[in-house]
Amino acid sequence: MNVHGTHFRTIWLKPDDPAVVQIIDQRQLPFAFVVEDIRTVDEMAVAIKDMHVRGAGLIGAAAGYGMYLATMQAPRTSPEVFRASVAAMGDQLKATRPTAVNLAWAVDRQLAAMDAAGSEIDAQMAAVKQTAQTIADEDAEFCRRIGEHGVALIEEISRRKGGAPVNVLTHCNAGWLAFVDYGTATAPIYAAHDRGIPVHVWVDETRPRNQGARLTAWELGQHGVPHTVIVDNVGGHLMQHGLVDLVITGTDRTTYTGDVANKIGTYLKALAAHDNGVPFYVALPSSTFDWEMRDGLAEIPIEQRDATEVRIIDGLHRGAVTDVLLTPEASPAANYAFDVTPARLVSGLITERGICAASEAGVLGLYPEKRQN
Amino acid sequence: MNVHGTHFRTIWLKPDDPAVVQIIDQRQLPFAFVVEDIRTVDEMAVAIKDMHVRGAGLIGAAAGYGMYLATMQAPRTSPEVFRASVAAMGDQLKATRPTAVNLAWAVDRQLAAMDAAGSEIDAQMAAVKQTAQTIADEDAEFCRRIGEHGVALIEEISRRKGGAPVNVLTHCNAGWLAFVDYGTATAPIYAAHDRGIPVHVWVDETRPRNQGARLTAWELGQHGVPHTVIVDNVGGHLMQHGLVDLVITGTDRTTYTGDVANKIGTYLKALAAHDNGVPFYVALPSSTFDWEMRDGLAEIPIEQRDATEVRIIDGLHRGAVTDVLLTPEASPAANYAFDVTPARLVSGLITERGICAASEAGVLGLYPEKRQN
Repeated sequence: MNVHGTHFRTIWLKPDDPAVVQIIDQRQLPFAFVVEDIRTVDEMAVAIKDMHVRGAGLIGAAAGYGMYLATMQAPRTSPEVFRASVAAMGDQLKATRPTAVNLAWAVDRQLAAMDAAGSEIDAQMAAVKQTAQTIADEDAEFCRRIGEHGVALIEEISRRKGGAPVNVLTHCNAGWLAFVDYGTATAPIYAAHDRGIPVHVWVDETRPRNQGARLTAWELGQHGVPHTVIVDNVGGHLMQHGLVDLVITGTDRTTYTGDVANKIGTYLKALAAHDNGVPFYVALPSSTFDWEMRDGLAEIPIEQRDATEVRIIDGLHRGAVTDVLLTPEASPAANYAFDVTPARLVSGLITERGICAASEAGVLGLYPEKRQN
Repeated sequence: MNVHGTHFRTIWLKPDDPAVVQIIDQRQLPFAFVVEDIRTVDEMAVAIKDMHVRGAGLIGAAAGYGMYLATMQAPRTSPEVFRASVAAMGDQLKATRPTAVNLAWAVDRQLAAMDAAGSEIDAQMAAVKQTAQTIADEDAEFCRRIGEHGVALIEEISRRKGGAPVNVLTHCNAGWLAFVDYGTATAPIYAAHDRGIPVHVWVDETRPRNQGARLTAWELGQHGVPHTVIVDNVGGHLMQHGLVDLVITGTDRTTYTGDVANKIGTYLKALAAHDNGVPFYVALPSSTFDWEMRDGLAEIPIEQRDATEVRIIDGLHRGAVTDVLLTPEASPAANYAFDVTPARLVSGLITERGICAASEAGVLGLYPEKRQN
């Protein structure tokens, strides 16, 4: 997508030094656009854990490229030592964020690609490099297709409203910054905007890290999409008063039965949508499905992050990014990063293969090869 | 309640100069405890509008004292001119915050007290001064009684849990800072804590103005009540996992049918409580009932405040209160201050007369003198 009019992805190999991975350091948005060089698995693990990169698809792509860095770092003493070392670095990457399923998915895919490449270390390295690129390309292509499928929902509402702007509410950032390109929740919005369908986005600021206010608002603005930032408390009121036509969010892990783990607070918006008859869709590439888990609420691990993220926030003060304490010094805080929205509250899932019901039958109807798993 | 161990109310006449009203400038909490002198109706109107004072009961008390200041400012040319001038200043006070019903209630009560005092201006002034004091005293006493009634709910849960801490979630600040003393939502909590019943409070930070993180956390801390600050997105997740035993909030206006206007985001917590079988109570003195309105969602006006409150936040940076911009410069924001929770989601109302169902029958059962209105 566009940054000051130039096309960017969120992760790529450095053009003049392909042993280096480059990312956008998203902690600095919207106040500064900074590209960061990542040279080691340690650096990639920090970039994921400390959220220089974040978002389901981008975390997967970052893990894919992280495994490529791992193959360059691993000792070449023997194929066994090499593989064990790369796998250990994969475990290090997997451990950075417990809720996001794309992380394990990408690491395991890289190990499988390595194993499939035969016993030659050089061939394994080439396969892993190629697979890192493929994971990124697929992520972008799947998101583009999610946009193609999802735009039909917006078109239909636009028709029903006689061309008046379609109001879409989204939570957190499931935009192109959370993936390699296009995004998931935003892909139908960008597709609608690019086709000339008037669309307006209510952007939940998404405390505590404000990915909505900082990232979604920024990327929508860069692409020229009309939007309004609101605090996370507002969505229910807007829905009660007919000011939301459609909710689309992303997800960090979705069970094959349709339970959706996404940024904390998503469940509250799903409840409000359900209470007001507003369609609530979740957009995801198939890499975000967890094909093992049946009960999202009971089984998906929910990351707890440092309470400092609740107590201290940063923003721009006289041109400099400055952090401020929001709470009494002596008051403790808790920081649950995700919640689970049960399938019964989800109108449908928008995937790269089309839209399906948030149910085992719906999901396996689109992904029949996953039956029996 | 206590501030650094000394008892304070939120509003009082200056001991050595009773022509001056004193308030705590709550904008500066929790970082500084500042008492402000209010000498004119204009100053009181600014103090209410810009939220030096806020909260249902305190706004009522502030309007009551504001009318006292009005009687000292009004021209004494004739009783008619005097009354018209005081009434006009009352309108000025009423216009400061559209959602809070206590404002109009206190102004109208003062005008009635004036009229009942006969035609002598001095007698009218004395009546208004006395009524200002009475409004404040009643507010404190009603909140104390709300605590007495509400503590039974906490005691029962404590018994059921075998004495394990009772987890209460609250939104915004309906603490003593929102009233003259004790608070409404907090009154049962303080009563339980003072009786030695272990209680822990989940404090919603309550964006955009963070009354929870700034005020509720501070006053609970001053009183020694265990609490944890959370972002507004978290409550649903906590309820899904059995970590909330009871929700108690305040209200800025409640219809006699039980619909509750309260700080934006309350509705989302009520939905989550309903979805998880968690009791959701609203605590209020009868001054917060609107005896004219039947349909809260259709009839209660919802204040929209300046978008700056969403885009810019302040907090403590190196010992100084500093504001920071949270959003891209170019992104607009919207700031709805309240929402309406329909009576069907409210387990009960805790009033100074006892607990009743959130329904016309329940409310009029406790306030039979309001029948036929």
